[in-house]
Amino acid sequence: MSDLPEEFAIIATHFAPLSGEGALNLSDDAAIFTPPKDRELVISADAIVETIHFLPIDPPDLVARKLLRVNLSDLAAMGATPHAYLLTLSVPRTTPKTWFAAFAAGLAADQKTYNIHLLGGDTSSTPGPISLSATIIGHVAPGTALRRTGAQPGDSLWVTGTIGDAALGLLALQGKIPDPTSHLSARYQLPIPRLGLALYGIVHACMDVSDGLLQDAAHLARAANLTAEIEAAKIPLSPAARAADNLQLCLTGGDDYELLFAVPPASEPALLAACAAATIPVTRIGRFLPGPAQLRVLDAQGTPQPQSAQGWSHF
Amino acid sequence: MSDLPEEFAIIATHFAPLSGEGALNLSDDAAIFTPPKDRELVISADAIVETIHFLPIDPPDLVARKLLRVNLSDLAAMGATPHAYLLTLSVPRTTPKTWFAAFAAGLAADQKTYNIHLLGGDTSSTPGPISLSATIIGHVAPGTALRRTGAQPGDSLWVTGTIGDAALGLLALQGKIPDPTSHLSARYQLPIPRLGLALYGIVHACMDVSDGLLQDAAHLARAANLTAEIEAAKIPLSPAARAADNLQLCLTGGDDYELLFAVPPASEPALLAACAAATIPVTRIGRFLPGPAQLRVLDAQGTPQPQSAQGWSHF
Repeated sequence: MSDLPEEFAIIATHFAPLSGEGALNLSDDAAIFTPPKDRELVISADAIVETIHFLPIDPPDLVARKLLRVNLSDLAAMGATPHAYLLTLSVPRTTPKTWFAAFAAGLAADQKTYNIHLLGGDTSSTPGPISLSATIIGHVAPGTALRRTGAQPGDSLWVTGTIGDAALGLLALQGKIPDPTSHLSARYQLPIPRLGLALYGIVHACMDVSDGLLQDAAHLARAANLTAEIEAAKIPLSPAARAADNLQLCLTGGDDYELLFAVPPASEPALLAACAAATIPVTRIGRFLPGPAQLRVLDAQGTPQPQSAQGWSHF
Repeated sequence: MSDLPEEFAIIATHFAPLSGEGALNLSDDAAIFTPPKDRELVISADAIVETIHFLPIDPPDLVARKLLRVNLSDLAAMGATPHAYLLTLSVPRTTPKTWFAAFAAGLAADQKTYNIHLLGGDTSSTPGPISLSATIIGHVAPGTALRRTGAQPGDSLWVTGTIGDAALGLLALQGKIPDPTSHLSARYQLPIPRLGLALYGIVHACMDVSDGLLQDAAHLARAANLTAEIEAAKIPLSPAARAADNLQLCLTGGDDYELLFAVPPASEPALLAACAAATIPVTRIGRFLPGPAQLRVLDAQGTPQPQSAQGWSHF
């Protein structure tokens, strides 16, 4: 369905060089993909929309990389090895060639970083904001994909990296808060998928934090039919996030793309070793307890915080 | 990335029931997919955008089915058997639940028709028009996928079904031409992917007609580095398309989702038998000749028609 001016030239110039094995140079109706032998495939699709998930001022190469990384984070959450991706772009007819060149350069950079290639996709026009979608394909040894279900009473709750930087980064890019080191805006524009951890047999459950730590921790609790308890004071914050002094936003804002784990006590040394080997910081922030499927947040004094319909109202 | 009101309720109510093997009930970070043994996967992704590929007045169930069928047509063009799909939806925040219910009902209907299931995806908001994307996964016996390349001098050029109905159907839905039987609008709103033909070893090349017969036939010619010649008078038109008397639009309009084949003379009986077995009409409309990679269109008198920069200007 060609409706974009010079669609075929755009594909040949900017996207065909990104294609790899099975993509047939993006010149056929579909890709042919021979699955790696004796592996299960892990597949996910995420869309990002201009003004909703990225800003019109965001550089196109960072938008491309964010699109890939948001999808790669889903593979990280399953413990999968990335392999390839498909892409659909809906962009205004007036989009300049320089946009496509920069966007493709971003894809190229992250293809190299994550050892993936383009398998196929579609480019069309839209009268609205830029709408992008990617489907990412990875693989695992059969039966070893990490799952959201499976946390047990007595497991501790761990999170990688720091929380809240991206949500604060959006405010910084909107000029609402200072960001002297650009740390916050960088975390918003360029998430870091936590790939490369070998956690099968170590964690009971895993997911990525994309919708806000509290909401996602509540998902883990519901998936296990347990109560999850988080100690707010233990949540890892970057120096820039501490300076911003907005814990409420950090815990609910989303776009972190960190990983959240349920870990049995006996496996904690193995978790620490695996994270150290991958140079990924990890912090114990809570635990799973028998009880109703819910999330409980404790303040620095150990007092449970009330949850309103709108979320946690104060820390 | 949850930003749509009640996103999780929408997924649980409308989409989880459509999910199948490997989708983990759409409640994990990604799907786990065990590829069928000893098969190659065939994968494609297409996006459709409101006002560009479908109309705001199109019923949501038909929009859902069109999204699937546009993608299924790519599998048909490769001779692949459909298996599953992923979906990304970007819709306005004000989209009513009834829209999702109708959209999901359309998916359910075509899942049954084509024996496919939902593997995963994403739902987000957009300040613009509805933007939808699907990635379709099918499979073939290794080495048997049909390709666009491979037409030989002396092959004839065949097309399934009728050409031009969908492009005329768009005009009809816009109130610009009459459509007393609704045949034309139905072809625009609900394409019929030509799945189920067993053509490996029969055709030399195959693609689907989505961008207009002439443009797509030119693709086949370029892929083979041959001249393709089409006899305009032989192009199959429905009675409704004949009545509309706009051959120019029929040949360039797009959205046909028919298949185009290059067939060696010795295989023509086998092609006819395969199409008859699948009750799919097929018509010989031209041939491949040695010569520059180009398309030549002959009028009823056998006179080549001039091609302008804008396409074929007159028939």
